Formats: sequence, C-alpha cells, structure tokens
Amino acid sequence: MAGSIDVMLRELNLESVESLPDDFDPTAVIKDHVPPVINGDKLGNGKEQVREIVLGRNVHTSCLEVTEPDDDDEVTGEREAQMASVLARYRKSLLERTKHHLGYPYNLDFDYGALSQLQHFSINNLGDPFIESNYGVHSRQFEVGVLDWFARLWELEKNEYWGYITNCGTEGNLHGILVGREVFPEGILYASSESHYSVFKAARMYRMDCEKVNTLISGEIDCEDFRAKLSLHKDKPAIINVNIGTTVKGAVDDLDLVIKTLEESGFTGRFYIHCDGALFGLMMPFVKLAPKVSFKKPIGSVSVSGHKFVGCPMPCGVQITRLEHINALSRNVEYLASRDATIMGSRNGHAPLFLWYTLNRKGYRGFQKEVQKCLRNAHYLRGRLTSAGIGAMLNELSSTVVFERPQDEEFTRKWQLACQGNIAHVVVMPNITIDKLDDFVNELIEKRAVWYKDGKRKPPCVASDIGQANCLCELHK
Amino acid sequence: MAGSIDVMLRELNLESVESLPDDFDPTAVIKDHVPPVINGDKLGNGKEQVREIVLGRNVHTSCLEVTEPDDDDEVTGEREAQMASVLARYRKSLLERTKHHLGYPYNLDFDYGALSQLQHFSINNLGDPFIESNYGVHSRQFEVGVLDWFARLWELEKNEYWGYITNCGTEGNLHGILVGREVFPEGILYASSESHYSVFKAARMYRMDCEKVNTLISGEIDCEDFRAKLSLHKDKPAIINVNIGTTVKGAVDDLDLVIKTLEESGFTGRFYIHCDGALFGLMMPFVKLAPKVSFKKPIGSVSVSGHKFVGCPMPCGVQITRLEHINALSRNVEYLASRDATIMGSRNGHAPLFLWYTLNRKGYRGFQKEVQKCLRNAHYLRGRLTSAGIGAMLNELSSTVVFERPQDEEFTRKWQLACQGNIAHVVVMPNITIDKLDDFVNELIEKRAVWYKDGKRKPPCVASDIGQANCLCELHK
Repeated sequence: MAGSIDVMLRELNLESVESLPDDFDPTAVIKDHVPPVINGDKLGNGKEQVREIVLGRNVHTSCLEVTEPDDDDEVTGEREAQMASVLARYRKSLLERTKHHLGYPYNLDFDYGALSQLQHFSINNLGDPFIESNYGVHSRQFEVGVLDWFARLWELEKNEYWGYITNCGTEGNLHGILVGREVFPEGILYASSESHYSVFKAARMYRMDCEKVNTLISGEIDCEDFRAKLSLHKDKPAIINVNIGTTVKGAVDDLDLVIKTLEESGFTGRFYIHCDGALFGLMMPFVKLAPKVSFKKPIGSVSVSGHKFVGCPMPCGVQITRLEHINALSRNVEYLASRDATIMGSRNGHAPLFLWYTLNRKGYRGFQKEVQKCLRNAHYLRGRLTSAGIGAMLNELSSTVVFERPQDEEFTRKWQLACQGNIAHVVVMPNITIDKLDDFVNELIEKRAVWYKDGKRKPPCVASDIGQANCLCELHK
Repeated sequence: MAGSIDVMLRELNLESVESLPDDFDPTAVIKDHVPPVINGDKLGNGKEQVREIVLGRNVHTSCLEVTEPDDDDEVTGEREAQMASVLARYRKSLLERTKHHLGYPYNLDFDYGALSQLQHFSINNLGDPFIESNYGVHSRQFEVGVLDWFARLWELEKNEYWGYITNCGTEGNLHGILVGREVFPEGILYASSESHYSVFKAARMYRMDCEKVNTLISGEIDCEDFRAKLSLHKDKPAIINVNIGTTVKGAVDDLDLVIKTLEESGFTGRFYIHCDGALFGLMMPFVKLAPKVSFKKPIGSVSVSGHKFVGCPMPCGVQITRLEHINALSRNVEYLASRDATIMGSRNGHAPLFLWYTLNRKGYRGFQKEVQKCLRNAHYLRGRLTSAGIGAMLNELSSTVVFERPQDEEFTRKWQLACQGNIAHVVVMPNITIDKLDDFVNELIEKRAVWYKDGKRKPPCVASDIGQANCLCELHK
C-alpha cells in the first residue's frame, strides 16, 4: 500500500517526501490539468487579431497573455528574464503617462519608499476597524488613527463616530446612501444631476426611488428645483447626496442652503444627508469661504477619497458616519458574532498605512499649504487660457478648470484630460507645477492654430456648459 | 496690489515665489487651520484611558494617533526617526503574526520583490477592464490577461465572457447576485445557511426575498430541503448561491445536483446560479472527484479570491460572468458614455499585477502541485488530531480541518484560528508546512492536558457540528 502511494507520488512529481497518512488517496488529484485553449483569438502567424472597441463587446487588443511555463523554465531562467523585460517596459510607460497627466484628480506626487518593506505581508483588516478579528496580520491600529484624524477634521467626537477606510469614493457613496436608507427605509433619494454616477448606481442597487435635481451653471445643486422636487414627496423622508466638489466642474453644493430648504419644506427630523467629498472633502476645511462640512450640522455621513488629494498607489477612501446610525445598520445581523457594517468583507490593510504615513508627515498645516498651491496654480491656468482667447471657468472654491474640449483625441489622450460633451477639465493637484501648466497651454495654443487655421472649423461655443460670461467663442467674446 | 499679495504670501509661508494672476485673492485661504481636539480621550498623565471592547461601541485602545508635525520637524529629523521606529516595530509584529497563522485561507507565501518598483505609481483601472479611459496610468493589459486565464479555467470563450478583478470575495458575491437580480428582477435568492455572510448582506442591500436552505452535516447544501423551498415559490425565478467551499467547513455544494433539482422542479430557463468559489474555486479544477465548475453548465457567474490560494499583499478577487448578462446590467445607464458594470468605480491597478505575476510564474501545473500539497498536509493534520483523541472532520474535497474549539482564547489568538460555536478550523494553505502543523498539534496536546487535567472540564462534544462519526468526546469515542 505504502509502496503504491510512493509510485503515485513520484509520478505526480511532488518535491517533498514526507510520510503520508494511510487514508490519503493520491488518485484523488488530477495528474496534469492544463485546460484546453477555448478560443485561439490569434492568427496563424502569432499576431493578435485587431478588434474594434465596440460598446458591449469584449476587447482583447493589447492584453498581456498569461502563458503556461515550460518544464525547463526554472533551469534556463528564460521566463524570469522575459517577465522582467515586460515589467521594465511597463514601468517606462507608467513614468511617461504619470508625467503627462492633468485630467483626473489624483495626486501623483508621493514617496512611500519607507513602506515598501511591508509589501511582503498579506495585510487584511477584515470586517470592522474597531473590533479585532483573530487574524493577526492587520493594520487596525493605523486605520483607527487615520479615522480619528478625519473625525477631528469634520468635528465628530471619538466616541460618537464610526467609519472605515474604503476601496474608493464609490464605496463611500454606496455606504453613506445605504446607511441613509436603513435609517429611513421609505426615504426618497435626491441628488443633483451633476452628482457622481455611483449615486445613481446606488439608487438602482438599493431599489430606492430617486429624484434628480437640476443644477446651476456652476454645477451646484439648484435649491429652488430641490424645493420643488421635495414638495412632490412630502410624505416620505428625504435622503440627500450633497456634492463637495462635483466630478466635472468641481462645484460645491451649498450645504447650509440644502439644510435650510429641507427645514423650510417641513423635513426637520426626517432627512439624512450624505456628503460626497471625494476630492474637496479634504480641501474645503482649508478654504475660508467654503461652506463648512461639520457633524455639528445635521449631516449623516461624509466620504472622501484617499488616492486623490492625499495620493496613494491604489484607490482608497475614508467614510465617517455617526455611531448611532451604524447600530441601526447592524441590527438583524444574527448570523454574525461581530457587527457587519462595512460594504466589503476582507479589506486592504495597506491603504491605512499609506494614509497614516502621509497624514503624519504633512499634518493639517501641510495640507493647507498644498491647498493654497493648488488654488493659486488653478487661477494661473485659468488666466493663461483666457489670455489666449480660450473660454474657461474656475469655481471659486475649486481647483478644477473647465474649458473647451480639444478637437484632437490624441492631444486629449496625451494629457489625459477628462471630457464630457463640449468641455474638458484639468484638475490642479499638488503634483501639477506652473511649468507643466505652461507646457500644456503652449501646446494647446499651437494645436489650436492648426485646428482652426483655415477658419472652416471654429472653436465650440461652451456658453451652455460654463455660462456666457466665461465663453470666448465668436458670438460671446 | 502686487505688493500686498506678496506680504500675504509671506505670511502664508508659501515656499514658491511664482508670479500670480491678478485676480487671485490669497485671503481666501485660511491662515492656520488645525482643528481643535474634540475629545481628549487621554488622562492628564498622557496614558490612554482603557476602554472595554463592547459591541457597538467605538474602541480606541491600541490606535496609533496621527499627530501634527512640529515646525522644526523637518530640521531635526525627529519625526522621520519616530515614524521609522513605529514601522520597524510593526514589521516585527507582522513577521511574528505571519509565522503563527493557521485559521484563515490566506496563502502568506509570496515574493513580489520584482513588483516593488511599481509602488511609486498611482495605478487605477477605473471602470470597465475592456474599455480604456483617458487615464493612462492603468494595468488593464495585465488585468485582461488574468481574466482570460480564469475564463479558460472555467471554460468560457474569450468573446463570451466579461469579468473584472475585484477588491475581495464579497465584491464578487455582490456582483454575481446583482447580475442575477438584474436578469430576474422578481427572483428569489436561495442560499444554504452555511453560505458566506456577504450573500445575506447582498439580499438585504438589494431588497431581495431570500430563502435559507438547510445543510448536511458536511456543510453542503441539502438538496431535499432546497427542493422543498423551491416548491414554495414556483411562480418566481430562482437565483442561487452555490458554495465552492464554505467558509467554516470547506464544504463544496453539489453543483450538478443543484441544477438537477432546479430542472426537476420546473425552473428550466428561469434560474441564475452564482458560484461563490472564494477559496476552492481555484483548487477544485485540480481535484478529480470534484464537481466541475464550468460555464458549459447553466451557471451565470463564478467568483474566486485572489489573496487566498494565490496569495497577494492585499485582498482581491476575480469575477467572471457571461457577456450577455452584462449587457442586461448596463442598459438604462444613460448618464455614462461607457458601460458601468463594476460595483466599484476606481479600481486597484496593483492587484492585477500581483495576480498576473503569480499565474505566469506558477501556471496551471504549479497550482496543481500546490493543491496536492495542501490536500496531503490537511490529511496529515486530521490524522495527527484523531490519533491524539481530538475529534476532527476533513471534507473529501477540502483542505479545511474542523475540530473542537480550544478552551483558551490566548491559544486561539496565537494560532489565529477561526472559530464558530464549539468548533475551530485550520485551513491548510501552501505556506503551511508539516513542521508548522506538528508544532501546532504538539502545543494543542500539551495545552489540553492542562485544560482537562482535573477532569472537571471536559472536551466539548462536537457531534452536532461535524457528525457522531467524527466526534471523539466521552460519549462518542
């Protein structure tokens, strides 16, 4: 019996020769399982078939195939060498792409060298940040430190808040709106039409009725329309998404006016406000004229992204809410010994370390300086654009400069501008210097001279997007 | 005017002296904003107040506070030194905790040194893996390579599947069940009572009716009870969560019997199956007797975790579904130019790199060897436990060994065992060696001799958890 197992094992090419329990049947494992290639997708000459990018179709034009190692790969070292070369090329392209990046609100300027020693560990803060699990390889002590910092920023006491570090801004919005729905199961969701798409995704996922509210030209919520929409559903509580910096125009909803509108419409005690502060949630506290985001006001939750203004290798975010709401969310969870109040189960334990490291190094004062720099550079950019006859808008509390969409997709892709309809934007983050902005504007001016040289094509009118006062098209200049 | 701005700027302590646009008002930024400490939480002597861990209360016993840098920190280097010392201590504790870890299905054995060069980049695969956004710092080419590998494993053609790399097993389940609900909006969710808690969380989030189905003693779904539950809702379609390895007992639901039960109950064409393969989704294909997870059968989606059997510094997972279902999910999304089919928006671009790297190095054959090793070592552990008179269960297709819960919380925490009621488990992963298992069993035997020495306390009976045949308590041995 033992002999036959040994033979099987040799066939199975197992490295180890530890003794085996008698009841183990090695025929239970398949001898050589490499699944057949289902769909070649390659021409005979080894070149990939080029497929068009079609909405709703599966596209594989540039993917890096995972291939099965050859038997002698470990000996020859060929595979290692080939992978190293793929990674080196990839690193080079990342360097280049990082250099020419203006359109997304990501601070690409960080140095986490001191943390690279931790990449060897599988760090997982599964479940609640405040309740330890038996899994010991976690970073809760850092996570709670970061949460305390944000709770202090938004003025909520340590024993009155609950929160966690999320995977991205969307998870913050999904969580905030879910908390709102659990507090008011019959509530209607109100959000301005310029809210992030994750807000409308939440409504659909959670099967909530949703009212889209109009916006002003700045991108802020139109509280007159909000009042009208509220009056349609006076019998149901209200759950409101308030934007602290919209995605496209960087507009900040007037939180105080939203609250006033709710109270005047008779919703006192029957509303829940989630503040989506993806980008500006961390900038606003340092801007004098900004409506203050504070739990001293009747708000329910605030979320902010960690990979945006702070900067982080991977997306992450912070969600802070009132502890009393979490107790509501966690009732009825009989199947768990602990409370289950996060959207995700296993949670990235590295993100808290990155945030903790940056917050500790920069402090509130460091962020304040960076906010000043960003606002100043954004003003500089707006000034350079308008001097060159390019219509542009910059909201007072924002570092997002909105202007006409460039006519050339290649230019847009090179500078990684985010576009919507006739407009594009640059979000001035701490890593965007005056030099970089000058390079960008100079190239844009040069290109425009080509695009519009014969007078056949004309710069688009953007009055309906950013207002007549900001438009410099033929009609409005 | 320019003069006064300069004075303001000097006061604001800005480092740069770049020229400023005339319309920039530096009084718009707050001069020194450090929020007040809201709640001291410390006694006068600087020691933290010790708080009890109470369910539903905010606990801050061991957190590492983020403190505001002093003005001279950059000069003295004190802060850097202090942070380095915190991180060094943390690293030491991670090393120790990683060494004594048995209870969670995480493969802690990986070496991603070759990828540390990429930690400097903010890599974000926002949105759909198959549709490029303008943000250039992404890793979609690696992500799609990984997805192809899994689609091949589960036998779905390249142009018929859709999928993405998720943040964890929960996100896979949330996605799979959401797809099921969008395909059958009136569908009832069926899941065995030993399903992962995220399945029931999904039902609550999505406002779906949910039927809990009984399990056999092995932890598998009881298809007789499933048939009975189905007969209660013959008029509504069925959405079923099938476990490919339950969390506690590692039980594998009989997919073929589930399908047969559905068809015999008249649900042909009116059901959607999501396979939760968090751990075993990647092991099963290499085990001969296992029910095969394959899209050649009428299943809708499969998810698997990436930080479990593969091993990864942070949680991640893979979700694969049929492209036709995604088209259903994405209809009605008028607010996006692209399709919005992922749960999250911004997505970690590092996770695909880790997975791509490991899959390429190990290949299907490498995983097969590791599966063999895990199954063999799990048999070894079960054998050692039962020889020592400790009742234990090991499901045929599993590397999860279930046994009596140790009487001592300290021992449980040291070895990081996951416990539920009277039982605990060890999940034998590739990094768990025979030596480590021997250390564990020897210590357990020693401890038990102490716990049970005077005969007052007795080892618990676990017959109701793992069956009489596996129990070795006084009554059943």
